Amino acid sequence: MDKILTTEGVPLYVKIREALRAEILHGNLHPGQKIPSEEELAQQYRVSRMTVRQGILELIKEGLLHRKHGVGTFVSYPHFDRDHTHLTNFFESAREQGIEASSTVLKIEISPAPEKIAQQLLLKPGESVICIRTLRFVNQTPVTVHDSYLPHRLFPEIIHEKLENVHLWDVMEKYGYRVKRAIQKLEARPASSEIAKLLDIKPGAPILYKERKILATDGTVVEFTYCYNRGDMYSLTVAMER
Amino acid sequence: MDKILTTEGVPLYVKIREALRAEILHGNLHPGQKIPSEEELAQQYRVSRMTVRQGILELIKEGLLHRKHGVGTFVSYPHFDRDHTHLTNFFESAREQGIEASSTVLKIEISPAPEKIAQQLLLKPGESVICIRTLRFVNQTPVTVHDSYLPHRLFPEIIHEKLENVHLWDVMEKYGYRVKRAIQKLEARPASSEIAKLLDIKPGAPILYKERKILATDGTVVEFTYCYNRGDMYSLTVAMER
Repeated sequence: MDKILTTEGVPLYVKIREALRAEILHGNLHPGQKIPSEEELAQQYRVSRMTVRQGILELIKEGLLHRKHGVGTFVSYPHFDRDHTHLTNFFESAREQGIEASSTVLKIEISPAPEKIAQQLLLKPGESVICIRTLRFVNQTPVTVHDSYLPHRLFPEIIHEKLENVHLWDVMEKYGYRVKRAIQKLEARPASSEIAKLLDIKPGAPILYKERKILATDGTVVEFTYCYNRGDMYSLTVAMER
Repeated sequence: MDKILTTEGVPLYVKIREALRAEILHGNLHPGQKIPSEEELAQQYRVSRMTVRQGILELIKEGLLHRKHGVGTFVSYPHFDRDHTHLTNFFESAREQGIEASSTVLKIEISPAPEKIAQQLLLKPGESVICIRTLRFVNQTPVTVHDSYLPHRLFPEIIHEKLENVHLWDVMEKYGYRVKRAIQKLEARPASSEIAKLLDIKPGAPILYKERKILATDGTVVEFTYCYNRGDMYSLTVAMER
């Protein structure tokens, strides 16, 4: 620990840490921007490089900064945090957080269900599914790609509905299915080049990947979805009890 | 869609997909291994490259295979899946899944709480915390690094306890605190070089990152932990309701 104190009795590295925090909060350093090197900061604040490093390390631990291996230290994007203790919908969550959310439909296809999808949706072999690929935006930045599969039999006309900027679950209600329960599996995965392109990140960048199965109040499996969330812009919070 | 059928009426790509699946299940292709190129597989099975690609794509969607950009297609590790619908402990979960789990302690330190930790643990400024860094293994492979912070005041003698292969929560019970509730935040992050080294992965590889706060039955915040889980070996499942 660096024990050098300022005249006010605060450790020097704390002063550096708080100075950098202020730069970020006031927008002098903005998300995605590279911060000056340790050497430059040491000169600017007239402290040792060790002191600068210690201040930076704490902001990295807090998530306000992040290192890119061999490139430098960058200001992190504020994450869009979803509360996954209860099932909420994307547009509702965003609205509560005062965030601008939108979505566009990239593709709609009807085809025989791939094996895994058929299993998850409890379909007969060869039964047809609707696949809807959507791209979700938070404050106009692409954050999530969804590949949603719905049993065609349950939602025969859904492809003719307006699906942009609308939650699929709201549309499902027109067909008498009210979403009640989700089972989600979460992983951290590298982005494929296809997903990376859609989310405007580099192939291999971390994706918070979800597979989710959605059940209606009567127990019908109404949806199975692959979700690809930008790791640097999306987080989720879960409360759980023993 | 490739509509070419085998003599048994199965689409050819399904045959390829199932042949590859069998190779993986029988261990002829093992986790982490690169599979032969599309061209080699096309020759081996006497089908077109398109057919091979389609079979492979479905196994990638299932998570059985994964692509490394510019390198090739690899057999995925079976993920150690944690059920996060309720709070369970690592050793219990592993035992239920018939998996060998162990842990070692890499570092124990007592120091004044860093600001974020003090906030999370509701400590007074300057109060001391115990930081315990542990490495968890599943079937002898390192999967998770934990940096756990505990209020020193609550667990004054905990650093003298046996902490290897033991869950911290079990040790806490000796001090009268029974773990009841967790609040977890999840992100996908690139591994720092320090974490990458400990987990035997490349810097920048995806990490399922968690910050968790643990509360005892009486509401005391007993732990705050940064968890770094290998993205290619760890997943978690949550069920949630509206």
